[in-house]
Amino acid sequence: MSLRQRKYREELNQFVVEGQHLVDEAIKLGIVKGIYTNLESYANLPYSFLVSEEVMKKITEVIEPQGVIAICQKPALKPLSDRILMLDHLQDPGNFGTLLRSALAFGFETILYQDSVDPFNSKVLRSTQGAIFRLNLIETNLLLFIEDHPEYTIYGTALKNAVSLTTIPRSDSKIAIILGNEGSGVNELILQKTVANIFIDIEAVESLNVAVAGSIIMHHLRRLEP
Amino acid sequence: MSLRQRKYREELNQFVVEGQHLVDEAIKLGIVKGIYTNLESYANLPYSFLVSEEVMKKITEVIEPQGVIAICQKPALKPLSDRILMLDHLQDPGNFGTLLRSALAFGFETILYQDSVDPFNSKVLRSTQGAIFRLNLIETNLLLFIEDHPEYTIYGTALKNAVSLTTIPRSDSKIAIILGNEGSGVNELILQKTVANIFIDIEAVESLNVAVAGSIIMHHLRRLEP
Repeated sequence: MSLRQRKYREELNQFVVEGQHLVDEAIKLGIVKGIYTNLESYANLPYSFLVSEEVMKKITEVIEPQGVIAICQKPALKPLSDRILMLDHLQDPGNFGTLLRSALAFGFETILYQDSVDPFNSKVLRSTQGAIFRLNLIETNLLLFIEDHPEYTIYGTALKNAVSLTTIPRSDSKIAIILGNEGSGVNELILQKTVANIFIDIEAVESLNVAVAGSIIMHHLRRLEP
Repeated sequence: MSLRQRKYREELNQFVVEGQHLVDEAIKLGIVKGIYTNLESYANLPYSFLVSEEVMKKITEVIEPQGVIAICQKPALKPLSDRILMLDHLQDPGNFGTLLRSALAFGFETILYQDSVDPFNSKVLRSTQGAIFRLNLIETNLLLFIEDHPEYTIYGTALKNAVSLTTIPRSDSKIAIILGNEGSGVNELILQKTVANIFIDIEAVESLNVAVAGSIIMHHLRRLEP
């Protein structure tokens, strides 16, 4: 129950996943510390606790529990990948999760985030469809990261004073892109430190959903030779 | 209250929007039939009813009502646009709404849908951010539409027996793309009737979120000269 709160997830370096699909993925990756279940198929694992339906109803976060909940160790940090997605003040769990799924699909295996929703919250976890287990997630100060890593070509995203995505060349150099808050975008101080800030050519609407915009840019800037 | 149900929305050709941003958009477009509000700023409109906070709490669908709810006439059908988005069995309101926002952004102004969530349901409406008012939404049989409209180059989307998006040329011809159900994709019978079926090059994950995939394809196939 305490792992439902961000502060305990951060203190213990653990998080909770629910449902067979996510739990199976976590088992495969060897990050499961304990399982609470009322399903026979999971009850015989060495770290499993068989619990009653009443207990399951108390510890679940979903309306129709799928009978299995796992406590997982957060994956160990890995070296920085050649493609990095940076998230500044991202607040919507669905957007964060969808972006993680796209990031893995397009080779952006390192995610840096600041002042954002916790990616290990249950709503983000569900939206990632398991992608989160295979990503390198680092909470950090984005401005300091940019200053410390001149080897990356860093692109911001903005609606004003920006260049069209179509003018940005695909390349094999180290690339990072920055997406911002759903309402206010990327912090101005960060936008001043980038090589360029990108917009996507659109008609008739003010902006795209941030997960859509980020995915279109990551698709464009994916590695030439995966 | 009855307009919260799809069958009455279809019978009466009306729907409900909540919150100042969406209501203001609807007023601008002249589709509002009546307003229920407890805000002074809306109370003086000729079709407004001032209601108490208790009534507002009863008729709202959100946890924190913004004080204004409008009954709207569905927009009149328009001629088919040169870009069409077709949705087969799309079930998630957030995905539908996000796709409508992207569709308008990339010039896919006509949306054909079959066996899908109702785009005039409140969750879809919120995700569209108002884009829905300016789109041409038609519920129809997709298979019959394809047979009746050989003037459109129609692309399906599929994970198997499909060609990479990067091989599909941008052009000014009439183009339609088809997206399918979140779990099962586009109906096989429909996929057999297309010019080609498209996939997006991805690594490490099985698939992308359908709103992300659709947006990437619409971005690629947007008009050459908007």
